[in-house]
Amino acid sequence: MLPTILDLTSLRAAYEAGQSPLDVIETVITRRAASKDPAIFITPTPEDTLRAETRALMERAPKPNSLPLWGIPFAVKDNIDVAGLPTTAACPAFAYHPEKDATVVARLRAAGAIVIGKTNLDQFATGLNGTRSPHGAPRSVFDADYISGGSSSGSAVTVASGVATFALGTDTAGSGRVPAAFNNLVGIKPTPGLLSNTGAVPACKSVDCITIFAATVGDGVSIRKVAEGFDAADSFSRRAKPASLPVAGLRVGVLDGAEREFFGDANVEALYDQAIERAEALGATIVPFDYAPFREAASLLYDGPWVAERLAAVEDFLSSNATDFDPTVRKIIEGAKGKTAVEAFNGRYKLEDLRRKTEEEWAKADLLLLPTAPTTYKVADMLADPIVLNGRLGRYTNFVNLLDCAAIAIPAGFGANGLPGGVTLVAPAFTDDALAPLADALHRAAAAGMGVDRAAAIPEESRVASLTDDTIDIAVVGAHLTGMPLNHELTTLGGKFVRTCRTAGDYRLFLLPNTIPQKPGLLREPGYDGHGLEIEVWALPPEGFGRFVAKIPAPLGIGKVTLEDGSSVSCFLCEAHAVKDAEEITALGGWRGYMRSISVV
Amino acid sequence: MLPTILDLTSLRAAYEAGQSPLDVIETVITRRAASKDPAIFITPTPEDTLRAETRALMERAPKPNSLPLWGIPFAVKDNIDVAGLPTTAACPAFAYHPEKDATVVARLRAAGAIVIGKTNLDQFATGLNGTRSPHGAPRSVFDADYISGGSSSGSAVTVASGVATFALGTDTAGSGRVPAAFNNLVGIKPTPGLLSNTGAVPACKSVDCITIFAATVGDGVSIRKVAEGFDAADSFSRRAKPASLPVAGLRVGVLDGAEREFFGDANVEALYDQAIERAEALGATIVPFDYAPFREAASLLYDGPWVAERLAAVEDFLSSNATDFDPTVRKIIEGAKGKTAVEAFNGRYKLEDLRRKTEEEWAKADLLLLPTAPTTYKVADMLADPIVLNGRLGRYTNFVNLLDCAAIAIPAGFGANGLPGGVTLVAPAFTDDALAPLADALHRAAAAGMGVDRAAAIPEESRVASLTDDTIDIAVVGAHLTGMPLNHELTTLGGKFVRTCRTAGDYRLFLLPNTIPQKPGLLREPGYDGHGLEIEVWALPPEGFGRFVAKIPAPLGIGKVTLEDGSSVSCFLCEAHAVKDAEEITALGGWRGYMRSISVV
Repeated sequence: MLPTILDLTSLRAAYEAGQSPLDVIETVITRRAASKDPAIFITPTPEDTLRAETRALMERAPKPNSLPLWGIPFAVKDNIDVAGLPTTAACPAFAYHPEKDATVVARLRAAGAIVIGKTNLDQFATGLNGTRSPHGAPRSVFDADYISGGSSSGSAVTVASGVATFALGTDTAGSGRVPAAFNNLVGIKPTPGLLSNTGAVPACKSVDCITIFAATVGDGVSIRKVAEGFDAADSFSRRAKPASLPVAGLRVGVLDGAEREFFGDANVEALYDQAIERAEALGATIVPFDYAPFREAASLLYDGPWVAERLAAVEDFLSSNATDFDPTVRKIIEGAKGKTAVEAFNGRYKLEDLRRKTEEEWAKADLLLLPTAPTTYKVADMLADPIVLNGRLGRYTNFVNLLDCAAIAIPAGFGANGLPGGVTLVAPAFTDDALAPLADALHRAAAAGMGVDRAAAIPEESRVASLTDDTIDIAVVGAHLTGMPLNHELTTLGGKFVRTCRTAGDYRLFLLPNTIPQKPGLLREPGYDGHGLEIEVWALPPEGFGRFVAKIPAPLGIGKVTLEDGSSVSCFLCEAHAVKDAEEITALGGWRGYMRSISVV
Repeated sequence: MLPTILDLTSLRAAYEAGQSPLDVIETVITRRAASKDPAIFITPTPEDTLRAETRALMERAPKPNSLPLWGIPFAVKDNIDVAGLPTTAACPAFAYHPEKDATVVARLRAAGAIVIGKTNLDQFATGLNGTRSPHGAPRSVFDADYISGGSSSGSAVTVASGVATFALGTDTAGSGRVPAAFNNLVGIKPTPGLLSNTGAVPACKSVDCITIFAATVGDGVSIRKVAEGFDAADSFSRRAKPASLPVAGLRVGVLDGAEREFFGDANVEALYDQAIERAEALGATIVPFDYAPFREAASLLYDGPWVAERLAAVEDFLSSNATDFDPTVRKIIEGAKGKTAVEAFNGRYKLEDLRRKTEEEWAKADLLLLPTAPTTYKVADMLADPIVLNGRLGRYTNFVNLLDCAAIAIPAGFGANGLPGGVTLVAPAFTDDALAPLADALHRAAAAGMGVDRAAAIPEESRVASLTDDTIDIAVVGAHLTGMPLNHELTTLGGKFVRTCRTAGDYRLFLLPNTIPQKPGLLREPGYDGHGLEIEVWALPPEGFGRFVAKIPAPLGIGKVTLEDGSSVSCFLCEAHAVKDAEEITALGGWRGYMRSISVV
């Protein structure tokens, strides 16, 4: 019996326990057919195709869980190509039949995942609300009066209602995050270029991102790792250069003063404040920052020249098929018609100016914790005022791709009205992995369940481990100790003091003859029964550690020393021949003891 | 008595010998007044101002050469602000009086350099030929019938004729390089963003670079280092991330087949071939590459949407002062008027596609050696066909800033017609320093003198030393040797084999007990008279070296070993206690000897 939400852990456990992917696919077919929401799919994968693909997987890889996504059902937003199904971008007249999977779809299928259908969207991915489609508006899984969010509307609802384990969305303004917030899901918005856009219909080609909706952060990150990778065929694809965030003392930027705007939605505002409290409880340092330059950058996406990218993407089709467009989408895209190249470049200059201004804010905070959307709306209200209300939804998302950031949207709990709210962690490019541990911890702390199942426990197996600092410990014995003449060699290479400690008892310390500044030599002598020697452990980045070791002159070198607690650490050692006739100073307990012993004071 | 060319070395030597900057400035004033070319300067610094600034410098820093550019005269292209002098961009109606120096001018003046005047240019830096100015056309210092090149025309002629030590230019399409070629000078074209553009009149704001004309590569690089630096006030300013080029086995890409286009100029073609031969003689590996994607990118600068940046820069002024423009410049800039934002974005997409295509070429070559300009023209011919002939001049320069490259233009000698030709080294962003040693060596090998003085010797003091590889050598003794079971630990960390060699005679080798895979232990024993042991030296990047050392288990470590030639290298060593009762294998000459000895074959 499968759970309501088909998270990765649950499905893998079912497969491990002997359940067949064919059974899982039958469940998917049943759930898909039983869905209360008729607007989720544009083209469901035909049932026979689904069964055949599942059988083909089992032939290709018979062993359960023998591929990273073995037998995992997923849905694909209908602006991303899946071979065998039409791509429509929610515009039937635009439909074409791709011969090849989009690159990310091909990677996911190669890893064992099974496409269950193409999902509804705001036409041409132009919108954040989900109502701009001739196929109807998918609804929030929590209240059918309310929008699902968009443009990746159907994808989010599919996962939140337990029809698929994950779904692909696309995200230009926030389309991979806003629907996550409205459906109690995780939305993984990768750094632009990390996932290939080959085979996706462009919205704003220079900033589009394919995204992943999942039940947990761990699920989303592991799926992203399957989907990502440099693709020479996509000129905007980039080689990943993972960036780190501090492991301790993380500074989390939060909205302040007049920039706290929820358009009167006290529920979402309260959920945002609770998320801030959770981040603080998890050890983060909360720092207010000035959202204004981010907000101004956000406004460029629709009010600036970037809307011309939407026109560039469909210009020929628009000229022949204007009446086939959703009226709101058409109005937005046609709004780009008068825009000049000068305006495009002036927009770029404005963005660069704002990017520079945001650098001052990034100096204050390592990452930003923002409401995913400041509020939500009923479908009827959205249809009555489609541009103004949609614009409000993007208040905290529109800047993210323009400013080349990574983001993870996570559930933040439920308001008194029974609707979920979401928050998003945002940080500069390539912090995709670095953002995940805090995102996962915040999600768990929110205790909001997964998708439609508010009581679901987030599986422990999907926990995202904290990243460790990428430094190497090195123990120093003599002239490199704090306050000693060569200590600066550590600090100039980025060294940080870790602790003072003591070697195991079988080490001996000698005064190295003819060294300036004076230095000791440390040696192990198995069987020697001493009291250990005081040393200091410092942490160096790997490059600094390398440069440090390379400069050490004979007869000293770096080996491993056993500490009194039995652990071992890289440490200065001395060639035995060099201390053959040297004065032993082991009894002084270490180099500081020796220095005290020769002090004239 | 000052030499014809006022290179840095000569001036510093004169100051060291007791000459006063006041004398040098008088020489500059005399030479400036005696210039045969009346079109070099738009606004010379008034003589009294020059004298007063020189005296002020001597008060501020009385000791000769006590500042990096103490008493060094330089000229500034008249689209870069110098406080106290008008900025005109060669359009008198556009003139304004800046209150502050441009950032780079301020840095240079703070370092002791003295501004001798504002130089002529193709109006609004729109051109590569130097004839598009109401102040007349500066001429090649070698033949007054010929163009000086542009747009930084006056700046180049000032240096080449010995009026200034260096001059600032700007470079969008090639304006800091083409005039260098036509006047036997070095043109330093930094990576975009390395030098601040604050206080420069934009041409194409997103790709403009301030450049340096100098007599030698060494001069240009050292002046660049004074001028460069991140500037928060310029949104396109970037923090430098120096990139390296291989120190040995440098692959130099050269034009091939139909891409070799000199528009019938056999002189320049021959000079290009000679430069290739010199590069080969200097040890470079010559590799033909496909210039086509670079050429297509180059064509975008004027034929694509980027010309709209020129319009964006002067739009208001153009609407009120159209008749104040040079007719050709006006025609070019007004050509952007019909361009749409969609065209701007489509141009960006095209550029990204071409950037991707050039990556295949960068995989073949570490840097490109190109003609700076394929030919040159007489002033009269240029005026008769200003757009077509100008376009030809940029054939090998226009792509460089669009594709985010660094470049150094250097003299390549003289043709039978007595006119100089130039070549340019181009490599990806932030190779500014890495390009310099080869550029300097090629310049010296060309034996073309400096500027107008074809017989001048390039001072040895200005030689640019080869950069050393930023790797760390490590000698391996046993299981890490080539073909041995742990060798992959070196290669996966970026290790490269350097050589096989032998330790000094006082090292002994033992079989370490209980190791898997089997490993030896190396120890020095002063006085031991052996034959040395065969080891391998590998080179690792510092980070890889650090990670490698951190993983070595006791009783092994990394110390310094003396080789048979007396040099020393980081190498595996073993704690003495671990081989106390171990089998000695010194007599087998090394680990390979031991492995052969136990081979059953």
